[in-house]
Formats: sequence, C-alpha cells, structure tokens
Amino acid sequence: MHPFDTAIALAPIDAHRSRGATTPAYANMVGPFGGTTAAVLLHAALRHPARLGDPIALTVNYASALADGAFEIDARAVRTNRSTQHWVLQLLQGDEVAATATAVFAVRRATWSASEVVAPAELPAPQTLPREDLTHRPPWVHRYDMRFVEGGMPSRFDGTEHPHSQTRVWVRDEPPRAIDFASLAALCDTFFPRVYLRRRKVVPIGTVSLTTYFHADAAMLAAQGDQPVLGSARGVVFRNGYCDQRGEVWSAQRELLASTQQVMYYRE
Amino acid sequence: MHPFDTAIALAPIDAHRSRGATTPAYANMVGPFGGTTAAVLLHAALRHPARLGDPIALTVNYASALADGAFEIDARAVRTNRSTQHWVLQLLQGDEVAATATAVFAVRRATWSASEVVAPAELPAPQTLPREDLTHRPPWVHRYDMRFVEGGMPSRFDGTEHPHSQTRVWVRDEPPRAIDFASLAALCDTFFPRVYLRRRKVVPIGTVSLTTYFHADAAMLAAQGDQPVLGSARGVVFRNGYCDQRGEVWSAQRELLASTQQVMYYRE
Repeated sequence: MHPFDTAIALAPIDAHRSRGATTPAYANMVGPFGGTTAAVLLHAALRHPARLGDPIALTVNYASALADGAFEIDARAVRTNRSTQHWVLQLLQGDEVAATATAVFAVRRATWSASEVVAPAELPAPQTLPREDLTHRPPWVHRYDMRFVEGGMPSRFDGTEHPHSQTRVWVRDEPPRAIDFASLAALCDTFFPRVYLRRRKVVPIGTVSLTTYFHADAAMLAAQGDQPVLGSARGVVFRNGYCDQRGEVWSAQRELLASTQQVMYYRE
Repeated sequence: MHPFDTAIALAPIDAHRSRGATTPAYANMVGPFGGTTAAVLLHAALRHPARLGDPIALTVNYASALADGAFEIDARAVRTNRSTQHWVLQLLQGDEVAATATAVFAVRRATWSASEVVAPAELPAPQTLPREDLTHRPPWVHRYDMRFVEGGMPSRFDGTEHPHSQTRVWVRDEPPRAIDFASLAALCDTFFPRVYLRRRKVVPIGTVSLTTYFHADAAMLAAQGDQPVLGSARGVVFRNGYCDQRGEVWSAQRELLASTQQVMYYRE
C-alpha cells in the first residue's frame, strides 16, 4: 500500500461519518501536511456511496493544527441536482472541529473548450534537474520528488528580501503513484510558503483556507499516470498577517489539471 | 435605505438562524444576482453577536438558482480560536439547501507587508469613460456604475471567438454607497461571464463556486468610501462545461482590497 493511500484511508462508521488517522509518513513541523488533510476530506466524498460525478471545486479551511492520531470526518451531500452535487464536510478530533470543507461534484459533458492561461514553454525536463535537497525537511517533503526550475526553498535564510515568489517545479509522489483526484488535491498544497521565498526569513506560518478547481477528468488523469506534474505558484499580496497565492498544476502534456489558491497566516 | 442594504437585510430567528428575502432591485435573469447571495451569507456572520474580527476568506457554493422571495440562513461559528474564527453557513428555501458557504474571520495585527501583484498603471480615470450601456440588462446591473477600460460586455454576439477575456473596469454601487465587507463581497461577483467575452455567444451559464480573500481592513475601506474600485478579471481554463476566472479588486489608492476566483458552468 502506498503511504499516500494509508494517509487518506477511511473506515466507515455510519452513513455520514468515517474514521481516519494521521500517519508519520506525512508529518509536518506541527501536525500533518495540509495537503493530506485536503485529500482525505475530498476522499470522504469520493468514496461515499451517494457520490455523483467528479470533483469540480474543493475548499478546505484549517481551523487548527491537527493532533497526531485519529480523526473523524462528517461528509454530507446536502444537495444533489441532475448533474451536480454539493458536499459539506468537517474533520473532527474529539468534540473539536479541526477543519471545515465544501466540495462541488459534477458529471461533465463534452463542450467547447479553451485554455486562456498557458503552460510555461521550454522548461528543462525533470530528469535533467537535481532532486530537492531533503536535509532538515519534515517527513511529508520526502513523500514527493520535487525538481525546481525556479523558486525552490531558499538555501539561505539571511533576511534578504526577494522581489517575487514565482515557483516552477516538477513534482510527483515518491514512490511514484498514478495520479487521482485525491493526490491532485494534495499536490496543490505542496508549494512552499511564498513568504519564505519573499522574505528569506523563517516566521510562523500556516494555511488558513485552500481552494482548488479541478479541470482534469478521469481520462486526463489516466494519461498522466505517475509522471511528474508541472506546478507553478506565486504570491498575490502579503498584508498584516495574511497572504495569498495562486497556483496551477499542469500535466506532462501541458494540460491544466487544476488551478489552486490559498490564504496563509504569517507572523511578524 | 440603500437597495443593497435592503438586499442583505436579515431578521434574527434564533441563535443560528435569520430570515431574509430576495429583492427585485438585484434580480438577475433567473433568481437574484449571485453577488448579493454571497454578501448576505457573509452578512449573517458579520452581524452575528459571536463574530470575532474581520473576514479573511469566503467561499460560496451555489447549489441552485434561488427562487424569488424569502430565505433563511443558518450561520454557525464552529471553531473560535484566540484570533481566528471559522464559520459554516447554509442558505435555505423551504427544506432545500440553495447555497452553502464557509468563512474565516480573524483579528489582524500589523506585520511586514508587500504586494506582489501590482495594480495596472496609467488607466483612464472613471469619469473620462462612458457608463456601461444598461439596455436589455437585468436589474442588478443597474445597481452598479461600471466604466470599462477593456473587456466590457460584447456589443455583438456574432460567435467570433476572442483570444482573451481580460477585463478592467471601474465600478461602484449605484447610487454611491460607502464600501464595506459585504458590498466588497458582492463587487467580486460583478465581472460578466468570461465565456461571453471569449465566445461572443450567449450560452446558459451560472456560478458554481466563488472564493474571495479579503485584504482590506476597516481603515482601507474607510479611506475608499464610495469612490469607484478598479476591478480586473480574466479566464483561466474553459473545459467541458466548467471554466474558472481570477480577479482583483483595487482601491482608488491602488491597494488590493480583495482577490477573487470562481468556477462557472456553461453549456455547449
């Protein structure tokens, strides 16, 4: 069993509730990697017998750092239309809400299609780039093979401000795993905090809210398989303790699999 | 009373529930303008006695077109930390969930700040531009004064595809109203559907999910007052019935008040 599948495994309790647990393999500095939290919430809807269609939108709000150990997810399809379905989810530890989420699922039909944002062209292939140095990194970073074209974790935190926080990175699960909606949701949270890139200074940070729009369907994910995806991210604004970023995840064929944004808090 | 305040007015029922109603002033083609739906959901948290701090993130999922008439909002602060608060909200008509939402509020503190995305420079002032033509437009468009620098509603829908869907627009409430968090939430939904701009073809559309990050605090909103804000929006991807857009709302002083994104469905 791939460690990612262990991280998102859920055992049903009743029609709405299921039980999961954090795993050391995806531990972060405090609590688990937020990408696996997003993925396990989406997985609660994906695995539900009432599920209709595929994910279109997922928003996860991180209400507190998860404690290591067991949690429960409450997943309710509050509205099911002919081709769309609306989910409300909560992740609980004891009586405390640790995360809230909503998701929209839909059955897609073929229509006119076009990409307005285009993938960066002429990038070095992943195998020509060194793998990100994992020294002193928390366990979850070891669960990804990251090859940075630009904007990796700064090698020195000397407080010299950098003019932008643009990142381009080839990334895949480590060991390789065929991509699916849950792992794509997690991949959207693998961008290092933009505030580290801008400030070259380590300050307390944490994701407050993460929203991902899924543009991939099952066929696009199948074509991608376990190849690296191309991730791109940059900051928008950093202001009085909160900053946001926008990102894209492209397939090996340069199709947009997902667009993603998040707001983080930071101190100082 | 400004028509916007009528549109977001809520009468408390109990600790969690309040009652509101759609207003003809903000009617759209079918049901009310989605911006007022977002605003009234945010307002349910803003006006709640348990509210802590100001909005940081708001996600609204539109589960169905609202029927004209009364609705109820269920608003629950499911987690309150020292400086942050997490809300789960639903808008109901009868026994049906018409919209779900989550919001994160926080008490901000002064920190290092920087803007990475910058406002477009050298734009014509709003008073030098013609007001958007309101002929054949639904009532809600009449509630805004829109002056397009580029990317207004196409004058001809002849099916000639346009290479991009970039919009820049000066916009304010009509009649003028001092901006607040609720009206800013609504302003973030005033961009016309990107698919109309790209395709120059009218097809059925509707917002599925809208997420806004608030970068303004009370002082920035007070400085803005009732002046026009500068809105910017563009499409990301249009694919098999769903497309997303990203937008920014800038103050008259070119500070980012909010960043916003949404995913819409479209037919054909």
